[in-house]
This record gives sequence, C-alpha cells and structure tokens, in this order.
Amino acid sequence: MYTFPLSMQKLIRELSKLPSIGEKTATRLAYYLVQQEPAISRELAEALVVASKSVRLCNECFFFSEGEKCTICADVQRDRAILCVVEKPVDVVAIERMGEFRGLYHVLHGVWSPLRGMGPEKLKIDDLVLRTKTHEVKEVILATSATVEGDATAIYLARSLGGNGTRVTRLAQGIPKGGELEYADDITLSRAMMGRSVVE
Amino acid sequence: MYTFPLSMQKLIRELSKLPSIGEKTATRLAYYLVQQEPAISRELAEALVVASKSVRLCNECFFFSEGEKCTICADVQRDRAILCVVEKPVDVVAIERMGEFRGLYHVLHGVWSPLRGMGPEKLKIDDLVLRTKTHEVKEVILATSATVEGDATAIYLARSLGGNGTRVTRLAQGIPKGGELEYADDITLSRAMMGRSVVE
Repeated sequence: MYTFPLSMQKLIRELSKLPSIGEKTATRLAYYLVQQEPAISRELAEALVVASKSVRLCNECFFFSEGEKCTICADVQRDRAILCVVEKPVDVVAIERMGEFRGLYHVLHGVWSPLRGMGPEKLKIDDLVLRTKTHEVKEVILATSATVEGDATAIYLARSLGGNGTRVTRLAQGIPKGGELEYADDITLSRAMMGRSVVE
Repeated sequence: MYTFPLSMQKLIRELSKLPSIGEKTATRLAYYLVQQEPAISRELAEALVVASKSVRLCNECFFFSEGEKCTICADVQRDRAILCVVEKPVDVVAIERMGEFRGLYHVLHGVWSPLRGMGPEKLKIDDLVLRTKTHEVKEVILATSATVEGDATAIYLARSLGGNGTRVTRLAQGIPKGGELEYADDITLSRAMMGRSVVE
C-alpha cells in the first residue's frame, strides 16, 4: 500500500498536532499547500518561526507582547488607575475592539476550576494583588466570564483584593442586546432582575 | 484600539490564507502556537518548507512524488498493463488503502466541468492517450466519481481511448455496502438495476 510522499506525510502529521485539526483537514491543507507556489508555504513557515520566537507575555499585565511590556502597558495615554481583569488574552482583544476602555489589563491565564485541576495558585492572582499594592490602582474591574467558574474566580479575586482600599467592580450580567425575554434562561433573567437599574 | 503583537497578527493572516481556515480559527491556532515551546512551530515550519519544495507530480502518472517517478510507478512489482484513471491524488490513496489494485494510476487533476470552466484540455487526458499508445496497456479502469461530471469525463475518456485496442472499463455503480434500499436515491437504484449481475 502506497500513500503520499514522505515529506507530505510529515507535513500532514505536523498539521494534525494543531488543535481542532484532524487527519482529514490536515491532509486537505497539505494537499493545498504542495500544489501552491512554494512561496506560500515559505511565508507561513517564516511567520510561524518569527511569532513563536518573538511573542512572550508582558511583564506587567501578562497579555501577549513582543517586548518586556506590551503595547497597551507602554501607552502613556492609558489610565493606569483602572485595571480590567480578564481570563484570556483574546478577552483583551474583545474589550479593545469595543473601544471604550482606557485603562490597563491584567490577564489571569485561566479561571478557577477545581474540576479541571485549575487552582487559584495557577492564575496570575498574586501578581494582581502585588500590582494593586505597588501601583496606585483606584478600580479593579472583574471581567471574568459570566459562568459558574468565572463567578467563583471573581468572588475569590474580590476577597483577595479586599482591604486594599481599591474599588472592585464586576461587569454587569443581564439580557444581551437584541435578546428576547422569551428566550432568556432563568439564571440570566434572575441576574438581570438583581442588577436592575432605575430608569430616569 | 490595540490587538495582538505584530508577529502574531502576521501569523494569523498567513494561517487565514489556508482553505477552510477563517480568522477565528486562525486566531485560535496562533494563540495555541505562541504558547507552546518554539520547537512545535519550528518543526511545522520545517515540514512546510521541505514538503512544498520536494513534492512535485510524477512524470508518468501525475500522482504526488518526490522524484521524477512516484513510488508506485517505480515499483517493478506493479502490473504496468492496467491503468486506473482517477480525478485527484487523494483518490489514489483511497484505492491504495483498499489494497486490491496492483496496477498503475493516472491522475487527471480535475474533472470535465463546463460550469466551472474546466474543459478536457485542462486535464491530463492527452498524456493518458499517449501513455496507452506508447506502453502496452491492456485495460484502462475509469475510476472518476459517480457524479454527472465524473460520468461525462468517463464518456469523454472512453471515446478518446477508443480504437486503441485497449479495454476500457468503469467502476460499478450501485447500492453502497450497508445501504438500505429504502434510502437509496432513484438514480443510484436505477444504476444498480442496470448493472445487475447473475446470481450463481
């Protein structure tokens, strides 16, 4: 039984190691790549090597960075007195896309999840506490997910940060924009009710 | 508005160029890769460069190869008097997996499809005709898909090869193994009826 040439098999194997890429997808990708100009593969290869060599975590907020400090922490225009705490680097990108937050971030790199063996000691919580102590931070916005784990992490963080004199807030939970009441689940409805605000 | 570091954005852009990889998937892949050991990216990069440089088409059958002749054409044990004509290189791998065919292949690199601007002159048909003339080929098995386009291509091929004294056959069409009659479509049923064989 014959199959693809060795170098193509190797490429399929390497591509299959990527998350959510199975053997079929890897074969289709390799199939595409070997039939293109070699420049296509070369550019992808170069981007891979450069990115994996250059990208590290910012010393301050733990977002992705190419230097010791990320571009956000290095921006002197940002309000250093407000920290927004998120679970993952992509969350930073989501909030930046929204375009209204002018403070700095703190990426936890995970969420407290006993079931998945993720204890608070594995998160960047000590660094956050230290940051609020050594810098003048007026408000810490907890922007963890609105899940059980995100809620637990937020409570844990609120306790760890308590007594610092820092204001600790959490993103509002409620009906998403465009959401119909009919289709909202009970917990979302209950959160929306609890968080109701005065109409003026 | 800030986003990922430049080298990571570049990696996301390059990954998005791959078929069926959108920006979200590309971001997730880049996200994974920059958080792994650089060796993971380096190996993938190397596999990309090596495969795209080494893989070419076999001079004889147009299957993927690393040399002038593919491993199948180079195997002296294969029966050179039988050619199996397929649309795509992956079809070769499928038939090899089945493990019963001992002849050689001929990859058309497409199928006759006027709607997609794929005329027969873009397929490796002239090469096939030449091959049957210059080599002693007893049988050409047309293994194009059981689609309208595959059928049209097979008819075109049969005509092009006619008068060569070569036996031209086509893969049987009918109910797939495990298929229930109840769910078979009309055309499949009609083909199965036409191709019925005597039970002995």
